[in-house]
Amino acid sequence: MAKDKLISRSEDFNEWYNSLVLKADMADYGPVRGTMIVKPYGWTLWEHIQQALDSRFKATGVQNAGFPMFIPMSFLQKEAKHVEGFAPELAVVTHGGGQELAEPIVVRPTSETLIGHAYSNWVQSYRDLPILINLWNSVVRWEMRTKIFLRTSEFYWQEGHTAHATAEEAEARTRQMLDVYTDFAVNEAAVPVIPGEKSELERFAGADRTYTIEAMMQDGKALQSGTSHNLGQNFARAFDIEYLADDNTLKHCWTTSWGVSTRFVGAIIMTHGDDLGLVLPPRLAPYQTVIVPIYRKDKEREVVLTAVSTLKQTLTAAGIRVHVDNRDHLTPGFKFNDWELRGVPTRIEIGPRDVANNSVALARRDIPGREGKQFVSQDGLAQTVQQLLDEIQANLLARATKFRDDNTYEVTNYDEFQTAVQTGFAKVWWAGSNEDEQRVKEETKATIRCFPLDQPGGSGTCFYTGKSADRVAIFGRSY
Amino acid sequence: MAKDKLISRSEDFNEWYNSLVLKADMADYGPVRGTMIVKPYGWTLWEHIQQALDSRFKATGVQNAGFPMFIPMSFLQKEAKHVEGFAPELAVVTHGGGQELAEPIVVRPTSETLIGHAYSNWVQSYRDLPILINLWNSVVRWEMRTKIFLRTSEFYWQEGHTAHATAEEAEARTRQMLDVYTDFAVNEAAVPVIPGEKSELERFAGADRTYTIEAMMQDGKALQSGTSHNLGQNFARAFDIEYLADDNTLKHCWTTSWGVSTRFVGAIIMTHGDDLGLVLPPRLAPYQTVIVPIYRKDKEREVVLTAVSTLKQTLTAAGIRVHVDNRDHLTPGFKFNDWELRGVPTRIEIGPRDVANNSVALARRDIPGREGKQFVSQDGLAQTVQQLLDEIQANLLARATKFRDDNTYEVTNYDEFQTAVQTGFAKVWWAGSNEDEQRVKEETKATIRCFPLDQPGGSGTCFYTGKSADRVAIFGRSY
Repeated sequence: MAKDKLISRSEDFNEWYNSLVLKADMADYGPVRGTMIVKPYGWTLWEHIQQALDSRFKATGVQNAGFPMFIPMSFLQKEAKHVEGFAPELAVVTHGGGQELAEPIVVRPTSETLIGHAYSNWVQSYRDLPILINLWNSVVRWEMRTKIFLRTSEFYWQEGHTAHATAEEAEARTRQMLDVYTDFAVNEAAVPVIPGEKSELERFAGADRTYTIEAMMQDGKALQSGTSHNLGQNFARAFDIEYLADDNTLKHCWTTSWGVSTRFVGAIIMTHGDDLGLVLPPRLAPYQTVIVPIYRKDKEREVVLTAVSTLKQTLTAAGIRVHVDNRDHLTPGFKFNDWELRGVPTRIEIGPRDVANNSVALARRDIPGREGKQFVSQDGLAQTVQQLLDEIQANLLARATKFRDDNTYEVTNYDEFQTAVQTGFAKVWWAGSNEDEQRVKEETKATIRCFPLDQPGGSGTCFYTGKSADRVAIFGRSY
Repeated sequence: MAKDKLISRSEDFNEWYNSLVLKADMADYGPVRGTMIVKPYGWTLWEHIQQALDSRFKATGVQNAGFPMFIPMSFLQKEAKHVEGFAPELAVVTHGGGQELAEPIVVRPTSETLIGHAYSNWVQSYRDLPILINLWNSVVRWEMRTKIFLRTSEFYWQEGHTAHATAEEAEARTRQMLDVYTDFAVNEAAVPVIPGEKSELERFAGADRTYTIEAMMQDGKALQSGTSHNLGQNFARAFDIEYLADDNTLKHCWTTSWGVSTRFVGAIIMTHGDDLGLVLPPRLAPYQTVIVPIYRKDKEREVVLTAVSTLKQTLTAAGIRVHVDNRDHLTPGFKFNDWELRGVPTRIEIGPRDVANNSVALARRDIPGREGKQFVSQDGLAQTVQQLLDEIQANLLARATKFRDDNTYEVTNYDEFQTAVQTGFAKVWWAGSNEDEQRVKEETKATIRCFPLDQPGGSGTCFYTGKSADRVAIFGRSY
């Protein structure tokens, strides 16, 4: 609850974020270092994210399944780059049922190896392909520097895993899921992401190609918000996922994997939040509107609460997620602040005079204060609120897009580059080597966030090497 | 896929079950001993179970949250009975991020201790109560004798955890959730359960009272299908969950917990399945109807598939979950067997002659063969199918209830008792001690499944001790 004032974003963005997730009742720290508790308010937001993604996955033919959290240590070692990438972050179970285990077991950091094992049993012929499976679960990557939603030892996510007969099909699926993520981010979360391909250095451990959606937070840093990997035949070879083709030869499958996690909650907070607290996109917000009844005397109370009850019914029937704040021991002013802190997109205030006038005060969270408040009729209120929600959703996207574009700089030399990545993204022609990329990272903390799918075409001069480059990269510091 | 014939239930019920879960594509074994992979067909059934429960929970004011899987070992030791119950089954993480941990971490076997820790931080005053939270997750209890869905090291479930100001409220919530479980089991899964209270010996480790819903499987054994625990102040005292009451005194909360797991999938299989395979209750079935197109020539194929496409649209629009089996390399007969094995409630067969006649053949899974097959008009097909689904749902419940009642014996002496629990339940007056109950268990393998809430009243003579008893118990062997 809103007892102490939130620090402002400009004062200390990091501290603003850390205190906001706690104050807004989104999450808490777990007792084991590195773990988090997602509280009901944060979890409901995550459920809405899940539903928006899940329905999109299913529309492309994907089905969900449940895979165990325990993986034999030996499985991870089958794909060389994979184990190299994940070994330092593993949580290891050495004892079970009171006994030391013959082989240590790993708590999944991701499930490609288990999937590889299962698919190799399940796939016999080309008729068994494609396999299109998604898992909603949590994974563990050991982490001591906790930042809730962004960096925790255990986090929630979905991991999709598909197997295909051809390289083309696998690449098409990898890109299709990137499109699904982009559509979700832009149209549900109002987070304007840049879809693109990762550089070799930033690829998933074991992938041939990694695609990503990259968002800009309000401190100008990038947040990788979802990734889609074309795993080539790497896991199919490591785990013998083979099928009998229609020409009667035995072939290795081509596989993909793709994921979005509770990181995305962090993306929403840092894209839209302001100095008053969260600003949640209407399509995903746990509550889309909160009704605050205003009264002093008992007689007023009765009149107002009767009207509130009717309004709640009307709005709920129209499919709007409504919460009535009927806490008797708190003042309306306190409640206004509290729901602003928690980012509810719209607020309805109703007192005795409003009841008499058949009106309510309707405030929008994205424009705080008087400017965003209007008196509207109770007639047609559901439609009025729905229109406002749509307007807010559009406004959040427009505002975040403008911020991102205003802080993205097309630069042509290293000086400009170094200035640019202090406050935003640098969009540059790039023809450097892995070593060049590494050096830029060491010198500026900025990495290639992606080579955007949307390329200008033609060629230009690499800002760093001076060589001719045929593609543009987005650089930025990142979470 | 239906390659080898299923063994019959009467021949070997255990083997019938084990092979059915694999053949019907519900689940598979994981590589780490004791773990299972729930395949898409089984997981979709679980998703429908989740949705049916989740909407009921939310209707009672419960919200979901996410709690970490890792618990400090010391937490488990705070509630004496709790650690005694769970210590032998723990999986222990001793290494994280390449280092040995200072304190071993347990993978949650259940979350009462973590919840206790969190609630003690969250609860200050009576105004913070009640807390009504549910978690959808998986838990780990070390297990070497795997039986898919019934006994695995890791299983999926929901665990609800509530905290209240008074003992009465906690007891009311415990019973309310038992009612929710009963309603779900009977009306969604067509599994006629007996709600009742557990004996002291069978209580949850750390509970004052445990309630249960008990179902009878087709081998006459009981399956505990859901439990609801009144934890009294045991965890509130162990974890200092205290609130400032309105009389300004500090009091301990009263807490509850309640859970249903993927065991319930096992309950559905063993309640309704027959010698041809699964028989899934229409309300939860992944597919409610499967359409099998029948044709020989290419010309027929086109005509039939066009009709199938229209039918699919009509049925889908009516909210029926439809699957079209368009596998070209399999015969219709193979497909019939395959979908019978997988328990789809209804099957629509359509060939060129049916297209010409504007009819289809409609078969019901609960009555296999000709008796359950009729030719119906394509006009109003959605309504016809929906009515049949409702009829099947009702028939499954009636059939299972009759089976349970036919195999429940009211016995008055130990001889009759011993015969009864060979094939079903014994319903008896009981006034025995814990030691008596333990002795009956050792001698007959039967335990008190519950004292049903629905008691005859009055008193009777205990079949075992000859003492006067004031309540009736259900005994049975169990999973």
